[in-house]
Amino acid sequence: MTHQNDLDGTSVPFAPSFVHRLHFTSDVFGADRDVLARVLEPSGDRPAKVQFWADEHVDRARPDLRRKLRAFADEHADRIELAGNVQVVEGGEAVKNDIHILERMLKVFHAAGLDRRSYVVVIGGGAVLDAVGFAAAIAHRGIRLVRLPSTTLAQADSGVGVKNGVNLFGKKNWLGSFAVPWAVINDASLLETLPDRDFICGFSEAVKVSLLKDPAMFAELCRTAGQIRRREPAATLPMIAASAEAHRRHITRNGDPFESLEARPLDFGHWSAHKLEAMTDFRLRHGEAVAIGVALDTIYSSMALGLPAEDADRVLRCLVDLGFDLAHPALSDTRPLFEGLEEFRQHLGGRLTLTMLRRVGDPVDVHEVDDATMRRAIERLQEYGAEHSSGANEAAETASRAGAGDPARA
Amino acid sequence: MTHQNDLDGTSVPFAPSFVHRLHFTSDVFGADRDVLARVLEPSGDRPAKVQFWADEHVDRARPDLRRKLRAFADEHADRIELAGNVQVVEGGEAVKNDIHILERMLKVFHAAGLDRRSYVVVIGGGAVLDAVGFAAAIAHRGIRLVRLPSTTLAQADSGVGVKNGVNLFGKKNWLGSFAVPWAVINDASLLETLPDRDFICGFSEAVKVSLLKDPAMFAELCRTAGQIRRREPAATLPMIAASAEAHRRHITRNGDPFESLEARPLDFGHWSAHKLEAMTDFRLRHGEAVAIGVALDTIYSSMALGLPAEDADRVLRCLVDLGFDLAHPALSDTRPLFEGLEEFRQHLGGRLTLTMLRRVGDPVDVHEVDDATMRRAIERLQEYGAEHSSGANEAAETASRAGAGDPARA
Repeated sequence: MTHQNDLDGTSVPFAPSFVHRLHFTSDVFGADRDVLARVLEPSGDRPAKVQFWADEHVDRARPDLRRKLRAFADEHADRIELAGNVQVVEGGEAVKNDIHILERMLKVFHAAGLDRRSYVVVIGGGAVLDAVGFAAAIAHRGIRLVRLPSTTLAQADSGVGVKNGVNLFGKKNWLGSFAVPWAVINDASLLETLPDRDFICGFSEAVKVSLLKDPAMFAELCRTAGQIRRREPAATLPMIAASAEAHRRHITRNGDPFESLEARPLDFGHWSAHKLEAMTDFRLRHGEAVAIGVALDTIYSSMALGLPAEDADRVLRCLVDLGFDLAHPALSDTRPLFEGLEEFRQHLGGRLTLTMLRRVGDPVDVHEVDDATMRRAIERLQEYGAEHSSGANEAAETASRAGAGDPARA
Repeated sequence: MTHQNDLDGTSVPFAPSFVHRLHFTSDVFGADRDVLARVLEPSGDRPAKVQFWADEHVDRARPDLRRKLRAFADEHADRIELAGNVQVVEGGEAVKNDIHILERMLKVFHAAGLDRRSYVVVIGGGAVLDAVGFAAAIAHRGIRLVRLPSTTLAQADSGVGVKNGVNLFGKKNWLGSFAVPWAVINDASLLETLPDRDFICGFSEAVKVSLLKDPAMFAELCRTAGQIRRREPAATLPMIAASAEAHRRHITRNGDPFESLEARPLDFGHWSAHKLEAMTDFRLRHGEAVAIGVALDTIYSSMALGLPAEDADRVLRCLVDLGFDLAHPALSDTRPLFEGLEEFRQHLGGRLTLTMLRRVGDPVDVHEVDDATMRRAIERLQEYGAEHSSGANEAAETASRAGAGDPARA
């Protein structure tokens, strides 16, 4: 009965089917509420059992939210059964740092009798989507999850993805899973109450994905960066949609949505971004850190991998035009910064694999980084940032030493 | 930006690739240890980091296990790095009932620095595979899991599957996920130390899967039932392999391995089996309960769905020839038993969907059960069991009231 190798039928490939549903709406709890209603499919002759979860930031910014959700449920009482009140959870990284919040989520699911055909609808920023999404993924081996990302960052990037997670042992996303959401609804009205600083944060991920996948999209970002910075919907909404669609194409067409390969191509610029967030106790937001990380690996790519200098200049200019500050004191602290390379390797396991750029739209995997060249890239970035950007990072670091937890990116 | 329905590109189907690796060995830590070694692929230029987990039952039955695992690692030191000692965990349902054991597993993974390219090799019965598998699935969004099922039941059935889980809120598998194991190795030597009662338990699942999928396999089971009962390897090993392969074909070819549809066809006979386990405080083992459940739904199918009476007789005779006792006092306790139908529905959500039989190899989904007919089926089964089987269940129930926990199947 012993088989000697993998070629005798012991390895059977298979490819189960998934569906990725992504909707764009202008006012999901108002004029476009039918989109949400249709996503919540009844199960046979039973109404869809639905539980809403909201990020405290959204709940505070939209005092009408709970009333609207109740009205929505009342209006669709023929096909929707509300499973308890709207649940409000702490926003930001805090929701991922406290395992007891995860336990509470599971208890609330259980108390409401949610099952695998029920729906958890979560409205919030990336951290809240991650934490509630993980709880939903492991309850009954997966309750249907509908994500309504409330930040540009989550709408353009993570909210569209298939990952969830919480932090454990002081490491980001140490606990988590891959799970395809039942549906994602990117709603424009949810973004209106975002502060300017948060609003711009999503666009560094848009720059990143365009550099990896779509030169035309990158050109459009360069052209409209000023309008985006001024929050002109005619520029921002198409670009969020383009970024979300590019992210989705990566998931649905690249063949490795659950990251069984060693490369993680969407993490261009992220090794330093993750580390800079931790080094600044998260005073630097993810989108801001990604802007710096993308700029840094762009310069490195031009120094070491043949990315044309004029393309590198376009990238830096685009990020500055969007309003990002590319200089940061922590960049000069190269010893802890370079530890980010090892931490990045550890999370994926195996050997180091970074995505860099040969040209715009032409990424390349590299397995080592030349220290001296990276140091020169950092110097060049600090100079560029000092000349062209706002100086906000320097001011913020000088002013503030208070901060949240500091989970190393794992 | 509002899309009106699912037909305008908002729903994108995709089908990521997985590989299901299933090996059959005679002596996986001895003559066939190369099979295990080759499954543990190094990651780039780094050796495979491997942590072994063993069911206490296996550890006790095989005092040489730890020495052999160390010798195995020493022999392959060029490609394998042992991550700590062999971890021994409580066997049976207890390991799934204590959430602190899950926490300990995660801590041990973390302390050893396991990552997504590391391996957790788990040797044990179905419960241990479920619990360690769940921990491995959520650490770093999935550490590679190699399962070595140590019971006929796990080798023929669940060990080959893509599910894991632990019990929570007193409900079986309330917490869990779908995760494709890196590899499964069904080793014959691991079964040698099983007591007779446990040894036979796997074959009710073999009967079940043959009735659903493979009439020729069912005929072979009928023909060799006596040899299987006497544990003749020439009969038992091919049948375990056939059952495992049928289970795997279900996963890799039926298109719904992660159970997004409402039916769960492999759960033929399981609504009553799960309930009987709970009603007897798990004195009735899963394989024994499945034998009764399969027999019951077979009789019901012959009464209500046109399954020929001679086929139903063959099923009952086969189960009795294998050594199963088909009568059980708890069957007459119809009120709690019938609650099993509602609990079965709840776990999947939506409407009740049971798989029944029209003919051998021709299953059919039904959405309701006729109470009176099911009562008659129970009476017929009790009569048949009293005439043909051992009476062991009656004796056991009379003698024993002690038992383990009683998680309702969720």
